[in-house]
Amino acid sequence: MTVSENTSAWYQPEPSATLLERRQTDWQLVEIFQHPDYGNQLVIDHDLQISEADFAYNTAMTAPLLAVPECQEVAILGGGDGGVMNELLAAYDRLEKSLGQVTLIDIDGDVIDLCRQYLPRCCGTAFEDPRSEVIVGDAFGWLEQARGLDAVIYDLTMDPVREGISRSEFMQDIFGKIHDSLRPGGVVSLQACGEWQPDRRQLLEELRGNLDERFDAPLEQVVMVPSYGEMWTFLAARKPPA
Amino acid sequence: MTVSENTSAWYQPEPSATLLERRQTDWQLVEIFQHPDYGNQLVIDHDLQISEADFAYNTAMTAPLLAVPECQEVAILGGGDGGVMNELLAAYDRLEKSLGQVTLIDIDGDVIDLCRQYLPRCCGTAFEDPRSEVIVGDAFGWLEQARGLDAVIYDLTMDPVREGISRSEFMQDIFGKIHDSLRPGGVVSLQACGEWQPDRRQLLEELRGNLDERFDAPLEQVVMVPSYGEMWTFLAARKPPA
Repeated sequence: MTVSENTSAWYQPEPSATLLERRQTDWQLVEIFQHPDYGNQLVIDHDLQISEADFAYNTAMTAPLLAVPECQEVAILGGGDGGVMNELLAAYDRLEKSLGQVTLIDIDGDVIDLCRQYLPRCCGTAFEDPRSEVIVGDAFGWLEQARGLDAVIYDLTMDPVREGISRSEFMQDIFGKIHDSLRPGGVVSLQACGEWQPDRRQLLEELRGNLDERFDAPLEQVVMVPSYGEMWTFLAARKPPA
Repeated sequence: MTVSENTSAWYQPEPSATLLERRQTDWQLVEIFQHPDYGNQLVIDHDLQISEADFAYNTAMTAPLLAVPECQEVAILGGGDGGVMNELLAAYDRLEKSLGQVTLIDIDGDVIDLCRQYLPRCCGTAFEDPRSEVIVGDAFGWLEQARGLDAVIYDLTMDPVREGISRSEFMQDIFGKIHDSLRPGGVVSLQACGEWQPDRRQLLEELRGNLDERFDAPLEQVVMVPSYGEMWTFLAARKPPA
């Protein structure tokens, strides 16, 4: 028995999902499905992003932040479905901890609009929360001018967004920017890949190498996200304290 | 970088927690602490069980059940803090799925009482929910007469409760009883151990072996539970469909 053996038996086949809306936005093809077991689902360019049943995804992304003292200023890069932001706000509420501001930067305002409309059990009231700021725009550009953050949640893929650079160069650039935006002792938390991604091993090695260059205290989670059809890996690490 | 390297950097030292109550029950020493970052904490015989910040624990235990069609009759063995039961009920509510009954069997009624009083952000309203039944008694005895369950959540340790039998014999007995209590296609979900448990490798091998004997579709999660000070392993598997 290994982690990756036979997990497909756990997952419901997709054909039973019903299409609720399809929209070609300025950036991508966004579809919303209704699944009989997993609630409503966000699919971008035919790639499942999240279902309303997938609290485990949001919990895995936010858990590392709960172990950071005085985690007040947080940025979420991507994450337009609002699930991670909602779980972070809910966690702070449950613990009666104060939070300065969580800023979510996503390129596609249509994703945010559609998730507010169709995935309320994912985004909750996060977009209306007075502690949240939402910026429709380029997360990487925003990150360049950010300083002193307590935490950065990277809820995007590791595929280069610009043409002409390799994934390795892309990662170098991203983790450099994230490092510079954090205060000493601040943390980065990110989703990495599924167990069946063909280049999984190489991607994880590159990610670990990039984190090791600039961060310490690495964490690696392997989590069951109910609707994904495979186990998902999440990483986190800390900018060394001053 | 490995999973187990240096995770201690993430965790707040315990000395800052304040004792709220200490009670020697019929079964064990139960203490409730208030932690400045993790909320209130249940400690049994000087061993931290759960903090109110540890939603990740409850999510990991319940996620496998969300992938089971028609999961209606559920038993939770142990789990007197109510966190797993509350997360299960909340997940079904969010997804508007029907649930027949969840039965929680814990030996120590004082644990349940103290968690209702001091850890409301863990157990929520689970103990008052009309879908929940709580039995203060022997989970193993209860399990012997149970049949046709859709899921069993094992929220106890793997240390033998009876003297004179080995851990290996104990596991054989437990997983046999769990298997017999499940319907074909039903699932078992359990917490296993932390990354720094001295006999971790041997324990996991024994657990996997026991599951492989009677179940299929094994799942293994490694999850950050914020207050634990180490990564935690969770297992799940399925009784083969008829």
